Amino acid sequence: MFDIPRGTRDFNSEEMHKRRFVEKTFSNVFKSFGYHEVQTPTFEHLELFTIKSGDSIINEIYSFADKGGRNLALRPELTAPVMRMYVDKLQMNPKPLKLFYFGNCYRYDRPQKGRYREFTQAGCELIGTNTPEALAELISMSYVLFTNIGLHNISLHVGNLKLLKLLFEKLKISQDQLKHLLPLIDKELFDDIRQALHDFGFDENRIIKFISLFQQTSFDELYEIFNSNEEALNEINRMKEIFQIMKASFNINTIHLHLGIVRGLDYYTGMVFEIKAPSLGAEKQICGGGEYDLISLFEGRPSPTSGFAIGFDRSILAMELEKIPFPKISTDYFIIPINKDMIQKSLEIAMVLRQKGKIVDIDLMRRGMGKAMKYASSMNAENVIFVGPDEIEKNAITIKNMESGNQEIISINDIN
Amino acid sequence: MFDIPRGTRDFNSEEMHKRRFVEKTFSNVFKSFGYHEVQTPTFEHLELFTIKSGDSIINEIYSFADKGGRNLALRPELTAPVMRMYVDKLQMNPKPLKLFYFGNCYRYDRPQKGRYREFTQAGCELIGTNTPEALAELISMSYVLFTNIGLHNISLHVGNLKLLKLLFEKLKISQDQLKHLLPLIDKELFDDIRQALHDFGFDENRIIKFISLFQQTSFDELYEIFNSNEEALNEINRMKEIFQIMKASFNINTIHLHLGIVRGLDYYTGMVFEIKAPSLGAEKQICGGGEYDLISLFEGRPSPTSGFAIGFDRSILAMELEKIPFPKISTDYFIIPINKDMIQKSLEIAMVLRQKGKIVDIDLMRRGMGKAMKYASSMNAENVIFVGPDEIEKNAITIKNMESGNQEIISINDIN
Repeated sequence: MFDIPRGTRDFNSEEMHKRRFVEKTFSNVFKSFGYHEVQTPTFEHLELFTIKSGDSIINEIYSFADKGGRNLALRPELTAPVMRMYVDKLQMNPKPLKLFYFGNCYRYDRPQKGRYREFTQAGCELIGTNTPEALAELISMSYVLFTNIGLHNISLHVGNLKLLKLLFEKLKISQDQLKHLLPLIDKELFDDIRQALHDFGFDENRIIKFISLFQQTSFDELYEIFNSNEEALNEINRMKEIFQIMKASFNINTIHLHLGIVRGLDYYTGMVFEIKAPSLGAEKQICGGGEYDLISLFEGRPSPTSGFAIGFDRSILAMELEKIPFPKISTDYFIIPINKDMIQKSLEIAMVLRQKGKIVDIDLMRRGMGKAMKYASSMNAENVIFVGPDEIEKNAITIKNMESGNQEIISINDIN
Repeated sequence: MFDIPRGTRDFNSEEMHKRRFVEKTFSNVFKSFGYHEVQTPTFEHLELFTIKSGDSIINEIYSFADKGGRNLALRPELTAPVMRMYVDKLQMNPKPLKLFYFGNCYRYDRPQKGRYREFTQAGCELIGTNTPEALAELISMSYVLFTNIGLHNISLHVGNLKLLKLLFEKLKISQDQLKHLLPLIDKELFDDIRQALHDFGFDENRIIKFISLFQQTSFDELYEIFNSNEEALNEINRMKEIFQIMKASFNINTIHLHLGIVRGLDYYTGMVFEIKAPSLGAEKQICGGGEYDLISLFEGRPSPTSGFAIGFDRSILAMELEKIPFPKISTDYFIIPINKDMIQKSLEIAMVLRQKGKIVDIDLMRRGMGKAMKYASSMNAENVIFVGPDEIEKNAITIKNMESGNQEIISINDIN
């Protein structure tokens, strides 16, 4: 017997039914917002990911040389491949370009609950515009994706890396100090942040003020801190406008503003956001994104870009934890030929019903009635059709509704 | 700028639209026959494939060691993984088990038209029964999959490896001779087969008779050749019954019978079949399968198995060559705010329509009317909605049908 590779999963038919339901729901939301689906290969040249994330990412991904000596990597995420595709093939398309995608991604990671070596991401990119309404629509869509699969217990957190960078400049924090500070901010280790700022020589009053920014903050606080910096004030005004549109046009009433969302300082350029599902515990982030720039790194023509990625597996886990009902797998009709001579006629009836779009199974093992009925139950058959010689002579069959137990003889043409 | 890895493809939104259409159609057919979807990981332990196909397959696949020193391989096909999953997790499920799947597969192959290093397969496995009706349903389903995507120019070819093996026994062909002969039969090189049989010492009469078996043959010919072999006669009778059911119950009137279908002698055990789309030229096989045994190799409990795989990419290529129309991508409504103050109201109207299931896009670039209309056309917008202050005061908008050019003012509540 062979084992499945560590950190990967098989999905049985019930799990696939759930996954397809979520995929379909996500896909319908993306499409309803005017997004179009694209797909890229499962592997890329390794350099695509190292140029984006640095050589250290090699330790976290599946990389290998192919037989032609090319260094390839199973994709750890989908934004770099999609932007590679954009620069390569889609730059001339009318703007804005609204792209969405589903794809499996791979990380050589310690497997744990909600973290797998092969996992699925959904995501999107918006290329060519960064008006307040464009950002408001993008972030709101991420929220609609989750409410449409039925999740209620989620929260939206918005930050801004342009402001964060300006803050660090204002604080005169050096690159070395930043390297120490950023992981602490990212992990919300406020005591450690306090200590670090203290060690950097900040007085207690300023420390308290800045710490509060990394937790939840308000536009008033931001205006107060950045009161003399025009670039910052423009960005705060823009964020405020985006929040206002999200509330007025998209009914998103609770938006947590805090500057503690770090993500990637090199990669993100402005607004960033995350959606969390607290039911998931430690691995609660189910969506993350914002305004970023990869086009210049990939030598394309400059254009504003934003987007987000959704943890598909975690979204399903969150639905299960919230006990959201998934549609059931069922069989519309299970057909049992009464004897061997009825098999051909039974198969014929099955095909007529299938062509009407019904899900139809049939006993293929020449079993006795009891065993065939037991199998029909295990397939969640809604109706069982018995095909016997007496009825067939009259072009009829016996049909039994499995829920009510009612049984009747009807003409073949009347089954639907 | 980065290149896409050799032999792989990006799919733009038009291509994805086609792929999703075919996936959906295939999925609906599988489900209507009572099949259930499963999924396995993209990579497996290398040994899973070498034990099935021999070490020589390593030259044709992407294999690599992970950071834990495990020898892994990107799957070259899906039957071995699905049967690995079956033996591991599904053996106790009620029989028969009807499984279908879609998945990307990988071969380190010379890229050419219709052959890629990453390609998509659809397929299914039927586990637990091998009655004539079971095989007839399976093979017929493969045919229905193609007729339901609209392909007309296809042909079904059925062979039988049990009979082929009995024939080689009868001919007293040695293993060494077989090794020479099989590739010739597989490639339909009849002159070379004739020469080989001649070299093996067969007289001209027998050679002519056997050659005809490797081309199209008939049940009468089979009965004549195997007239004294009971095992062969039983198998011929069974095949005849299967053909008869396919014609009577599934309306499949043209079935080409020939023993030249070799596929894998070690792996397949009985009936084998292929579907060809001649429009594709050299790479015309779009489906192949039959009765096989992997369970014993994977140390599971013996159970009859059959199944088939479909070349997803070639199926789409065949549709394009037959000029089968695919559904169009279109946008139900494109909304243009007349001025900046109309943006919020426009986004609100967009959301109302999206919640009704409509595909709605909106100008996110604050463009002039001409440019916005040009973009709407490029998105195949069926209607354009103009949101302006005068109409909004009366809770109305202007709507323009892009096909007819008709334009009217209607109440917001009347858009649908």
